[in-house]
Amino acid sequence: MTEKEDLLSMCKRRGFLWRSAEIYGGEAGFYDYGHLGAKLLDSWKQIWKDFFLGLDENYHMIYTNNIMPYSVMEASGHVDHFSDIMIKCKSCDSYFRGDHLIEEETGENAEWMGKEDMKEKIEELNLSCPDCGGNFSEPEDFNMMFNVSLGPTGEKKGFLRPETAQGTYINFRREYRALRKQMPMGLATIGSAFRNEISPRQIVFRKREFLQAELQIFFVPGIHDEKFERKYQEIEDMKVNLKRVSWDESKEVELKNIDDLPPFYLYHLGKMYEFYTDVMELSSKDIRFRELSEDERAFYNKIHFDLEVDFDTLNGWKEVSGLHYRSDYDLKQHQEKSNQSLSVSTDEGKKIPHVIELSFGIDRNFWSLLDRGYKEKDRDWLDLPKKVAPRQVAVFPLVRKDGLPEKSREVFEKLRSDFRVSWEKSGSIGKRYARNDEVGTPYCITVDYDTLEKESVTIRDVETTEQIRVEIKELDDVLEKLIEGRKKFKDYLEQED
Amino acid sequence: MTEKEDLLSMCKRRGFLWRSAEIYGGEAGFYDYGHLGAKLLDSWKQIWKDFFLGLDENYHMIYTNNIMPYSVMEASGHVDHFSDIMIKCKSCDSYFRGDHLIEEETGENAEWMGKEDMKEKIEELNLSCPDCGGNFSEPEDFNMMFNVSLGPTGEKKGFLRPETAQGTYINFRREYRALRKQMPMGLATIGSAFRNEISPRQIVFRKREFLQAELQIFFVPGIHDEKFERKYQEIEDMKVNLKRVSWDESKEVELKNIDDLPPFYLYHLGKMYEFYTDVMELSSKDIRFRELSEDERAFYNKIHFDLEVDFDTLNGWKEVSGLHYRSDYDLKQHQEKSNQSLSVSTDEGKKIPHVIELSFGIDRNFWSLLDRGYKEKDRDWLDLPKKVAPRQVAVFPLVRKDGLPEKSREVFEKLRSDFRVSWEKSGSIGKRYARNDEVGTPYCITVDYDTLEKESVTIRDVETTEQIRVEIKELDDVLEKLIEGRKKFKDYLEQED
Repeated sequence: MTEKEDLLSMCKRRGFLWRSAEIYGGEAGFYDYGHLGAKLLDSWKQIWKDFFLGLDENYHMIYTNNIMPYSVMEASGHVDHFSDIMIKCKSCDSYFRGDHLIEEETGENAEWMGKEDMKEKIEELNLSCPDCGGNFSEPEDFNMMFNVSLGPTGEKKGFLRPETAQGTYINFRREYRALRKQMPMGLATIGSAFRNEISPRQIVFRKREFLQAELQIFFVPGIHDEKFERKYQEIEDMKVNLKRVSWDESKEVELKNIDDLPPFYLYHLGKMYEFYTDVMELSSKDIRFRELSEDERAFYNKIHFDLEVDFDTLNGWKEVSGLHYRSDYDLKQHQEKSNQSLSVSTDEGKKIPHVIELSFGIDRNFWSLLDRGYKEKDRDWLDLPKKVAPRQVAVFPLVRKDGLPEKSREVFEKLRSDFRVSWEKSGSIGKRYARNDEVGTPYCITVDYDTLEKESVTIRDVETTEQIRVEIKELDDVLEKLIEGRKKFKDYLEQED
Repeated sequence: MTEKEDLLSMCKRRGFLWRSAEIYGGEAGFYDYGHLGAKLLDSWKQIWKDFFLGLDENYHMIYTNNIMPYSVMEASGHVDHFSDIMIKCKSCDSYFRGDHLIEEETGENAEWMGKEDMKEKIEELNLSCPDCGGNFSEPEDFNMMFNVSLGPTGEKKGFLRPETAQGTYINFRREYRALRKQMPMGLATIGSAFRNEISPRQIVFRKREFLQAELQIFFVPGIHDEKFERKYQEIEDMKVNLKRVSWDESKEVELKNIDDLPPFYLYHLGKMYEFYTDVMELSSKDIRFRELSEDERAFYNKIHFDLEVDFDTLNGWKEVSGLHYRSDYDLKQHQEKSNQSLSVSTDEGKKIPHVIELSFGIDRNFWSLLDRGYKEKDRDWLDLPKKVAPRQVAVFPLVRKDGLPEKSREVFEKLRSDFRVSWEKSGSIGKRYARNDEVGTPYCITVDYDTLEKESVTIRDVETTEQIRVEIKELDDVLEKLIEGRKKFKDYLEQED
């Protein structure tokens, strides 16, 4: 099996994720999260909230709906413009995304192409249907939003939101007042989004229903930037991997050497980078910020970099989040279409705030942790940040007799309010270790005969498989230090020598 | 204004909740949660998870999709049976739910009525359109699920899930294996559900998009009950308010005196009751379990009690959650339609597990906290459990000079990692108290001139408005004890005397 197949198989067997409605043959573009996947998902949401809402006291969560009224998605431009170009085979009636067909042939990005460009390119490359070899019909626009009809007559139209952002923009005014008109103001949300992908694929990367975590920061440039500038000074020496449009390769640069981007943008770019290296603990060689060209980015995005991760299971660099300076496009559109003022009062009069958006695909970030953490050498194990690991500690009795199960149960009970912990007695010790290595449990605790005499247990480290012996009364403290990263496992090993 | 209008106005002004897409005139049946609402919602989800997943080590969260394939909702019976009876006015084309029209006229529950019963009753009562006085057409079935068309041709049908339960049932087999075949097994989920209500109303009680928290417990009666029976013994003396079908009124009874219900049901009934009294801190006079008659409950629910709350803003008792013994209906249906075995191995051979479902409407539970907590006498204040209050502590300087803002900022920084805390300097002290009383902040801390000399601050209690003086170095400890309920405010008052 390839590494991708191995990892997907582990995900199914152990309870991370799998294709939805499996017993009915599976549904393309939909995945369900099992009991370990749900824990990892919840932990990721928590570290995301802690980190990004922690950036400022005036950043807050709100929750809006999956179903959006027609008027909202019309104002945002999605009704008219949220389309992919679809190409149909005249022989077998299969549908394809035009840009994907061209990308597969040329290896170059074709997302920017219009219908005319695409038609010419397909003729030039002499492309035919990959399923049956038939000829293609003319490229046509295909709106990717799912329609929903509301009410008994079904006359009222709505959509499943294709992004969580619009629900936030339409609540700007209400929150601006409820938060007593303090600016900059940040509104975050976590929720589902929906896109009727023509051909869902790439595991969780092109799903029809997916999860987003987005933070929209509202501010008037030139008036509310002081706060960002001050915070930017503190991190301007930070090094990030960057791939500019005009560069052939990505390289490591200090923020302060990027002189064409404003501090409010660089500050958030630095903070997002820090989240990936320090909180998600990805290696800086595996991540980069890639700048999107004018062709690639939406016209209202004045500056747009995607955070990309280098995936083993997906053939290289793929976008997992983005930082978008959307200017005042969003609030201007909604002000115009709703006829409600969305401006704020400033010393320079009434102004419409601009938006900088930090947008994260949660499923993709989830997959980054698994892809980057999965180690297949002499044994399968998963290297996850200890804070997000779905199970942080597993407790076993060495054997199922002589009071060891009862004693191990006591140890488990002692730990369960502070950690995500399991108690396991089935299978041999070796099997229990293997099971836990596979799902990334950083620490396995074994209760043995010495425990009964000396009130101490062994802790085994998933990375090195080395063990230390710790007194039960110190167990909580040792585990807390290890999981929070205040101590390393080898510090305790050295202590023992 | 009525109490209901007052409370709704506070919710809008302060950031709890409001009608969606307000700037576009609002969308019937949809509400958004603002920054305080989101915090209360998240806290409620957390206490729910802590309490119900804490009941057993083999109870776990999973996450499934909002869009469900046609095959799943067909197997569950929703395609054929998930309908309300709709009545149309022949003059003005307005649509109504037949049962609601009859209930409003007679004050009696009419949800059980079929089309024929309803037609007769409407004729008997001589009902006409409440909007224009016109005559009604024949009652007709209206399926309440929202349709979704998948893929480029739109030929593949799906639905927005009308309940989260089915997503759990179709994952039973996969989780049974991943969890190494331990029974009883509990799978919980929290997420959105969607119903195309003919006439959305009653604030958050009849929304078109709403939130559910559900726990499905799988077990084979007679084989896996031992665990429930043992746990039931521990709580059999518990008193609950009950309204049986044959009783005229609800009364308080001990669980052990209910002799026609099985221990596995009574145990979960007791635990749900405990959640409402001990965790949500509702008064037992405001809650009851009401048994549903055979006419009212779904045919597959062998036992069905709803937990009802007595609402001021909604004219009395309304359902906020339910406990459903669904027998083996669900897994049998999915086994038959999917052709996959959903049985488990037991000492008595292969058996299809039964389900007991604990189902909670999150928006309704949220509203219970506000409705029951809202106090309007000499001042508006909100009595929320301290653990779920969206803001647990507010810190102010007495005046905005002489170093008091800076000192209060220090106090705020000290507390922010342990509590949900705000720092406020705008408005007078009186206004800051009033603002926090209104949203249910249990403790307001004021930094005054004595603070500078004696390193102590005042803590004001929202309920009594009484104050105590506490040294800053003890503040964390005192607040923790108060919020966790290990000490009462009056204990500290007495200490001062």
